[in-house]
Amino acid sequence: MQTTEQIQKQIPLVWGEKVYLELSEGLRIPARKVVLDDGRETLYLYDTSGPEGYPLCEGLPPLRRPWILARGDVEEGPPRVPPPAACRVPSTLMRPKVLRGRGPVTQRFYARQGIITEEMRFVAAREQVDVEVVRQELAAGRALLPANINHPESEPMIIGPRFLVKVNANIGHSPLSSSLEEEVEKMRWACRWGADTVMDLSTGPDIYATRQWILRNAPVPIGTVPIYEAVEKVGGQPEELNFDIYLQTLIQQAEQGVDYVTIHAGVLKDYLPLVRNRRTGIVSRGGSIMAAWCQAHGQENFLYTHFREICQVLREYDVAVSLGDGLRPGCIADANDQAQMAELKTLGQLAQIAWEYDVQVMIEGPGHVPMNLLAENVEKERVWCHEAPFYTLGPLVTDIAAGYDHISSAIGGAMIAWLGAAMLCYVTPKEHLGLPTKEDVKEGLIAHKIAAHAADLAKGHPLALAWDEAMAKARFAFRWEDQFRLCWDPERAKAYHQTALPPGTSKQDDFCSMCGPQFCSMRRSRQIQHN
Amino acid sequence: MQTTEQIQKQIPLVWGEKVYLELSEGLRIPARKVVLDDGRETLYLYDTSGPEGYPLCEGLPPLRRPWILARGDVEEGPPRVPPPAACRVPSTLMRPKVLRGRGPVTQRFYARQGIITEEMRFVAAREQVDVEVVRQELAAGRALLPANINHPESEPMIIGPRFLVKVNANIGHSPLSSSLEEEVEKMRWACRWGADTVMDLSTGPDIYATRQWILRNAPVPIGTVPIYEAVEKVGGQPEELNFDIYLQTLIQQAEQGVDYVTIHAGVLKDYLPLVRNRRTGIVSRGGSIMAAWCQAHGQENFLYTHFREICQVLREYDVAVSLGDGLRPGCIADANDQAQMAELKTLGQLAQIAWEYDVQVMIEGPGHVPMNLLAENVEKERVWCHEAPFYTLGPLVTDIAAGYDHISSAIGGAMIAWLGAAMLCYVTPKEHLGLPTKEDVKEGLIAHKIAAHAADLAKGHPLALAWDEAMAKARFAFRWEDQFRLCWDPERAKAYHQTALPPGTSKQDDFCSMCGPQFCSMRRSRQIQHN
Repeated sequence: MQTTEQIQKQIPLVWGEKVYLELSEGLRIPARKVVLDDGRETLYLYDTSGPEGYPLCEGLPPLRRPWILARGDVEEGPPRVPPPAACRVPSTLMRPKVLRGRGPVTQRFYARQGIITEEMRFVAAREQVDVEVVRQELAAGRALLPANINHPESEPMIIGPRFLVKVNANIGHSPLSSSLEEEVEKMRWACRWGADTVMDLSTGPDIYATRQWILRNAPVPIGTVPIYEAVEKVGGQPEELNFDIYLQTLIQQAEQGVDYVTIHAGVLKDYLPLVRNRRTGIVSRGGSIMAAWCQAHGQENFLYTHFREICQVLREYDVAVSLGDGLRPGCIADANDQAQMAELKTLGQLAQIAWEYDVQVMIEGPGHVPMNLLAENVEKERVWCHEAPFYTLGPLVTDIAAGYDHISSAIGGAMIAWLGAAMLCYVTPKEHLGLPTKEDVKEGLIAHKIAAHAADLAKGHPLALAWDEAMAKARFAFRWEDQFRLCWDPERAKAYHQTALPPGTSKQDDFCSMCGPQFCSMRRSRQIQHN
Repeated sequence: MQTTEQIQKQIPLVWGEKVYLELSEGLRIPARKVVLDDGRETLYLYDTSGPEGYPLCEGLPPLRRPWILARGDVEEGPPRVPPPAACRVPSTLMRPKVLRGRGPVTQRFYARQGIITEEMRFVAAREQVDVEVVRQELAAGRALLPANINHPESEPMIIGPRFLVKVNANIGHSPLSSSLEEEVEKMRWACRWGADTVMDLSTGPDIYATRQWILRNAPVPIGTVPIYEAVEKVGGQPEELNFDIYLQTLIQQAEQGVDYVTIHAGVLKDYLPLVRNRRTGIVSRGGSIMAAWCQAHGQENFLYTHFREICQVLREYDVAVSLGDGLRPGCIADANDQAQMAELKTLGQLAQIAWEYDVQVMIEGPGHVPMNLLAENVEKERVWCHEAPFYTLGPLVTDIAAGYDHISSAIGGAMIAWLGAAMLCYVTPKEHLGLPTKEDVKEGLIAHKIAAHAADLAKGHPLALAWDEAMAKARFAFRWEDQFRLCWDPERAKAYHQTALPPGTSKQDDFCSMCGPQFCSMRRSRQIQHN
């Protein structure tokens, strides 16, 4: 097992110093401090990398615990669903007692009561907006702040179209490959490259243990799809599932600290015939499990029929619900079809039920969608789902980019985020082909951070504009080191710049190997302006 | 020097066979034949790789020469501007005599006369549209078919919003690096990865020789920026330039066979003050040269004042003009500013002048533009430039993606092509940092072929839809080899798929390492549909 220090060494902070700003009283807001122009300019960038210097086997400090306890509305006790007898987790990472709300303890609940929580103050400072905007957006359901009371290690963040566009990274081993340790490292690695949330999609053995390791070391909200674990418990046979097994799984995950769960409650029995003429049927894992269950039993999806009981659980821990699009299109030809749209309408109804219980909600979106059909997705989601934040998987704008699907997805992601989607689920170059490695995670994240940032710019977000402005100035002044510091991957930018220069050329020169000194337009342009 | 066979070995045609289809009488249309589903389905994809098996030192066969001669409107003779005394070109690649039109010999001229040329029939068959559509679009100036009579080696292609979106690859050595041989190889390499045209932006020594090598081996139209060579002739000092030097350069390039030339005739003296308050001034090499000349002489841009004489030359060889955006924005903050828009209007006036001479025209576009300002570029170009095809450099939707600018550019490129741009100039991962290697050329091309294809899909192009449909079917049927064949880079897709599988798993299996067999949604979905 590597320590976080060892992981950090793999990505030296050449691009600036990790600092904590006291922008709001008593709160330490993480930021990446980038000093430019020999100290004449300083930029503070949004930072998701989390606290440094804590060994993975001990976990991160419980930042939010005092805030949660001070609210006086939770009780502490042994978990209602205890951990499996033998699990590969050191005692330092186990929690013999867990917290449970005596009533709703969700950020939505507080927001609607007019209460400003520390979590709200934290995200307001982090996004540099007024805290009242945060409270209002949460109360209206236009944003969510995933913050399970049993995951006090997480640094609060907010998801909604009024805020910076967020990116989720999926990790998780499949039964065919990848170890528990690798997944924990991958999670930290993802945070270092800008993941705003991480979904642990592990299947196979050790699900509980993997999740425990991840949660105790995660500075960002963690999402899961509990049906994966439930179906493991019944030997992988969806028809053997029942609501009780699901509920036990859900409670255990809530008590571990999962911040949001994908629930495929919109895959209704009546929608299954709509899928028959599709090119690629059902491509959501959770969707296909629920479809198989409905078909085997001839009954309605139990996640739908028991949705209110589910919400009763979620509100006691502040687990947000991400309403899964189990019928999302898996190819361009299936985009925006009847099955997809029927489910989306149902997700809107479910969102209203969740809100009745003060559960925080977001809506999952596709998938594979050509550019001309993207806007319809956002518009229908906005109306049918009553402005609940939209969380899309890409979308991929073509089916044929396997090996380069992170680019296909960044195209669709940038556009849909500009149109209003609040969070993008990344896609890696391995999509459709295999499980991503650490390098794939990095490539997928950077592609989608670029997409999200492009959307922030298009929406005129001041923090995004300031970043690009700093880069433009550094570029025109040939401040190469400053340019590297402002990149997603400074090491790569620097290496690209230096390898292309012939020996003897200084990296301080006011040109690069692309044009050479004589044909450098900016160099010439500066001379013109100085005349 | 490598032979083309050696180059071809570097990219084995695992994805299908290069074939020639006789879709139009007497014309052999290149295509990539992809046999799918054990021979039950065949797809013919657009192919730019060019004839195979010809050694680079001999060049490609002059496919179009008989067509050109049969029209009876050209004369053959020694070049008006002879090659430099000593140049590194074997005699097999030199042409002691060149062709010149006795009047206009442009595809636009023929189209307006109602004449259907072989070139038009070729592109109609290649794009699978009616040849009358091709003729009408050319006659209206809404498309161009770059086809210098001295570059008979090129396979005709068409650029216009009614046709498949095209991608240009820039190559060319800078004085700091890269050899002549490398550039020729890079050109062939670019064609293999889908470049529809190639611009040779070489500067420094050996410009003439590099271009001769490239033209004789280029199966796609070649573009240049003649001002680069002209400024070399005067020791790199723009103020020493004059129109005569430029004209001699232009004639020599036209006689070598350059298919289109970028001319920065819209950088007017009056526009220079508009640039002063920009963040990054002038970022076009040609633009900065002309700006320096205007400033040094206090006179109007000689490319503007002599534009009619330039057109007189271009029409005699059918060299198309790409009206350069010398004042394009170099950063997000400068996008769509007064300088850019003033020049765009002037380009529209110049397009009309070129059309008077029956010279084919396209308009170059930015650059760095946030997503929210993209549509304005297309709309103004359409109106001000009278629907002349728009050829954009990206655009990059953020400034901060150095090292990953191909992704930033693919996002803007996909969007602007959907909105109506006809050709995208690629950007490689090395943009802003250094000269691209072959690997960078490939990465840049694939990113922009994905963008162009996504736009074709969004515009509903039947060839594009058929490709994605074939992929969707192969995916749902777990025909892995077929999926690889349908990718841009089959070798990479295959390698990604196989490395992630544990030993003993067959690549024929109906799942992959991403989800494993138990959680494969498509596998389950097929079972549901078969019930």
